[in-house]
Amino acid sequence: MTTSFRVWAPNARQLTLQLDGHDHRMPAVGGGWWALEVESAGPGSRYAFGVDRGPARPDPRSHSQPDGVHGPSEVVDHDVFRWHDTRWRGLSLQGSVLYELHIGTFSPAGTFDGALPYLDHLVELGVDAIELLPVAEFSGDRGWGYDGVDLFAPHHTYGGPDGLKRLVDACHLRGLGVVMDVVYNHLGSSGNYLPEFGPYFSDGRQTHWGPAVNFDGPESGEVRRFVIDNALMWLRDYHCDGLRLDAVHAVIDESPLHILEQLASEVDALACHLRKPLFLIAESDLNDPRLVESSARGGYGLQAAWADDWHHALHAVLTGERDGYYADYGSLSDLTKALRQAWVYDGRFSVYQRKERGRRPTGLKGHQFVVCTQNHDQIGNRARGERLACLTTPARLKLAAALLLTSPFVPLLFQGEEWAAGTPFQYFVDFEDPDLRTAVRDGRRREFARFGWDPEQLPDPNDPQTFARSKLDWTELDQHEHLDICNWYRRLICLRRTVPALTDPRLDRHQVTCDGAGSWFLIQRGRYLVAASLSPSPAVVPVPERTTLVAASGSSVSLYGQDLLLPPDHAAILETP
Amino acid sequence: MTTSFRVWAPNARQLTLQLDGHDHRMPAVGGGWWALEVESAGPGSRYAFGVDRGPARPDPRSHSQPDGVHGPSEVVDHDVFRWHDTRWRGLSLQGSVLYELHIGTFSPAGTFDGALPYLDHLVELGVDAIELLPVAEFSGDRGWGYDGVDLFAPHHTYGGPDGLKRLVDACHLRGLGVVMDVVYNHLGSSGNYLPEFGPYFSDGRQTHWGPAVNFDGPESGEVRRFVIDNALMWLRDYHCDGLRLDAVHAVIDESPLHILEQLASEVDALACHLRKPLFLIAESDLNDPRLVESSARGGYGLQAAWADDWHHALHAVLTGERDGYYADYGSLSDLTKALRQAWVYDGRFSVYQRKERGRRPTGLKGHQFVVCTQNHDQIGNRARGERLACLTTPARLKLAAALLLTSPFVPLLFQGEEWAAGTPFQYFVDFEDPDLRTAVRDGRRREFARFGWDPEQLPDPNDPQTFARSKLDWTELDQHEHLDICNWYRRLICLRRTVPALTDPRLDRHQVTCDGAGSWFLIQRGRYLVAASLSPSPAVVPVPERTTLVAASGSSVSLYGQDLLLPPDHAAILETP
Repeated sequence: MTTSFRVWAPNARQLTLQLDGHDHRMPAVGGGWWALEVESAGPGSRYAFGVDRGPARPDPRSHSQPDGVHGPSEVVDHDVFRWHDTRWRGLSLQGSVLYELHIGTFSPAGTFDGALPYLDHLVELGVDAIELLPVAEFSGDRGWGYDGVDLFAPHHTYGGPDGLKRLVDACHLRGLGVVMDVVYNHLGSSGNYLPEFGPYFSDGRQTHWGPAVNFDGPESGEVRRFVIDNALMWLRDYHCDGLRLDAVHAVIDESPLHILEQLASEVDALACHLRKPLFLIAESDLNDPRLVESSARGGYGLQAAWADDWHHALHAVLTGERDGYYADYGSLSDLTKALRQAWVYDGRFSVYQRKERGRRPTGLKGHQFVVCTQNHDQIGNRARGERLACLTTPARLKLAAALLLTSPFVPLLFQGEEWAAGTPFQYFVDFEDPDLRTAVRDGRRREFARFGWDPEQLPDPNDPQTFARSKLDWTELDQHEHLDICNWYRRLICLRRTVPALTDPRLDRHQVTCDGAGSWFLIQRGRYLVAASLSPSPAVVPVPERTTLVAASGSSVSLYGQDLLLPPDHAAILETP
Repeated sequence: MTTSFRVWAPNARQLTLQLDGHDHRMPAVGGGWWALEVESAGPGSRYAFGVDRGPARPDPRSHSQPDGVHGPSEVVDHDVFRWHDTRWRGLSLQGSVLYELHIGTFSPAGTFDGALPYLDHLVELGVDAIELLPVAEFSGDRGWGYDGVDLFAPHHTYGGPDGLKRLVDACHLRGLGVVMDVVYNHLGSSGNYLPEFGPYFSDGRQTHWGPAVNFDGPESGEVRRFVIDNALMWLRDYHCDGLRLDAVHAVIDESPLHILEQLASEVDALACHLRKPLFLIAESDLNDPRLVESSARGGYGLQAAWADDWHHALHAVLTGERDGYYADYGSLSDLTKALRQAWVYDGRFSVYQRKERGRRPTGLKGHQFVVCTQNHDQIGNRARGERLACLTTPARLKLAAALLLTSPFVPLLFQGEEWAAGTPFQYFVDFEDPDLRTAVRDGRRREFARFGWDPEQLPDPNDPQTFARSKLDWTELDQHEHLDICNWYRRLICLRRTVPALTDPRLDRHQVTCDGAGSWFLIQRGRYLVAASLSPSPAVVPVPERTTLVAASGSSVSLYGQDLLLPPDHAAILETP
């Protein structure tokens, strides 16, 4: 058995491989790389690198960190795992419904294997793919995952590389796709040894969360490869179907070939080789069509982008909240605009950001936008991590679900949303460094003090109870009120799968009408109509002759000839002749 | 006579207009603006603004600073000047030859009016437009102009607003266009009071020369207007025909509508209104097609970009220099590539920048690139500001001119190049602050110490003699060897004007052949051939039957049937049947 160890360290004068208690000098092999073949090593061997006689550090491209971010790396051979998903021919993002989940809180066990018993629930629900919050090794035993530092290593507490493969395999066998959330705009602060190896970070450019990644400075070529190879790894070695790229507005690249465009073209080449669709979804607050425009039109060629405007416009109307960025939303006309074209800010002035924001989505298709009524950020970045179910009535939750699941966009659900889970999703970390623990807790307290929160009322992110509290309680599904919501989600997703008009992506064929008083909406999707009323009193919505009622969010919705009677906060789906 | 004073200061609590020794409180008029109409003021009135009872500062949009950057502003009425250029219908960049000049050193007087007697020389030379190094008010009496701080005010030592108008008017009457060099990536450090008025600069983003301009942060809307209004002012109020945008690689804008795209679209609208062509030329080291691609193809829609690669590839071959960025050039194959498509770095790895640089210019036209054999930067950023004439032989100078002026690109000359001026163009400043003076001098000394320069041998940028030494010596034109070069430039420009093949912008129809040994080039432009030899011994270049010699850089170039005999360092232009 022979293992080839390789590491990039362009400014190092000496590289040492530490393997099973022995030090091996590594020869430089050109291009800033150092490499050594070792006969006695194989899968399971533990190793680390020393740069210029410095301390032993994990491999920047470590595929497994069994002892966490500070421990040695473990050799992994991706060819050993026995896959069963040979018949899986991939997932098309168009027409799909995504289900965002966090491994640590989705199941009681909080592991990849722990999620397996709950996959059949997702199949029955009717979603097409799960989207995992980042699983790359981050510091500690619990966390959302956005401060990963070993980007190639699935977290050891989740079950490491084999655990993730078992989960993907099990999903594919059930017809579920897997989307992986990946973070390429910064790395976590604890356990980030990359700067000792090379210029992975930009001089002087900062993101909100730490130094920006060096995508366009000297030596950026290998940093770009690091990121692209990482993306390709999830798609090739772990059989993932797509990636969700976290906060790409913080990916700064001034070079003529933007890293996102290069990534998209390399993923496209892999898709050709694998003969299955692969897709990239960007999270961005820029509302920039360039993300999803084709390369021929000067775009980056990603398949879709998150459209937070859709969420904010709906959330502000449903809850009446106007704190923080919700200050920019709240009118029914903005909600109408979101329902029509996802982006409310399409070049319009944002009072919250104090500048013009976005650009018109001219010519874009519905499936190029991912929308939701809640997600990990919208829930977890609240002071106490409350779900929408805590903030509004069951009737309005069902109305929101109807708008979401009949939209021409790609709907995304957040774990437990489908039954209005009562558990929160709070912000939790597990840093060992006391200063970092204090900084995270106090930073959050300061942020929410601006909105009048008493620090003592806020959960401490470091407290294991904050994590425990955020776990789904699957027994809620035994209760009638939760099951009622869940059945409505199932009904809507089933309709979406069976009625082609509901997934028609042509935004120019899709009309949204709002009545004069702004109390109800009528959305026309081909021969289908979606009606929703936010009026405090019953609304009468005129519909064409011979229209029939297909589904309603409550039994008191009724159709009398050409008059649809919608009680307050109700929604209905109708079919015209 | 009534004058309306307006200023933007969004965070101010109080704004005072100081006018003729009196203070006037200005009311806020919304959007962060403050405004006041004053009856007693008119053109020539001096005024300043005080923010929150702070010291009197010039108007950020001052149109005239008669006493320099720290003094009061002067009211200017653009409607008063009497223009004579009503028959001027604008200039097309396609097919043009540009002539870069610096007002302070172009004429003995160093003013706008001082340049007038020399315009007829330019008309005889045959160039189409002058391109002025920046004239916006900068600190002190002398400088290149790239550290301007009152961007709307032509420098008082050059002759202020009326002086500039007289120069543009005189150019237009002679059929010469005027291009203005403008700097939107940073402001000079001395006399920059803009931060007292508003968030003109980005938090945390730096350029090489100072804080980056705030094009995408909060309140960036008015900062963008400031820059766009400035550009429109030169084109509308001063009748300029185009702008050269300095170092746009340092214009950082992550918003979906890049400031350069917005600028291009607003300039296009002005061109429609004025019914004449207007153009924007970017200086950029990114080799990014996006700059000049149309908006429909995802580009910014600028008309052209400087292609420094063309210069560097030629300079390195002609001089053998390999210092600094010339390390990336020097091969004949790179020169061939530059002659063919302007960009040598079209995605290729740059050893000097330690990353891949540029992108393929697929589909671009020749007139979208501005090329030169020398310019203010390539000369002035040398330790002692020597022109190419000091670094190579007259024969090679003439060969370089032939390659430049027969190229499919837009040729740009630097003042005096056309007669191989013996005067240098050194780096000069005139800061009053002793610390800034020392910092500039020592910074330059440190930079050149890396290349082995003795600090004592370097000119002091602050020394008035450094400026005086850089002025053109027009009496050189009385000397035979200077006149000989000048006649060659005239001959080449005349040919370029008369032979359509030489300005044909289709890069895919333009062949560049280099012989096996790399000693000569043959460039095919339609029925015309350009031959140039850099071989140390005479070269015999095969040409088609019945080819005739149109022009040669020396009398010993001769054509014997199908053999063109080129002595070392000679060039010829030929016509095939």
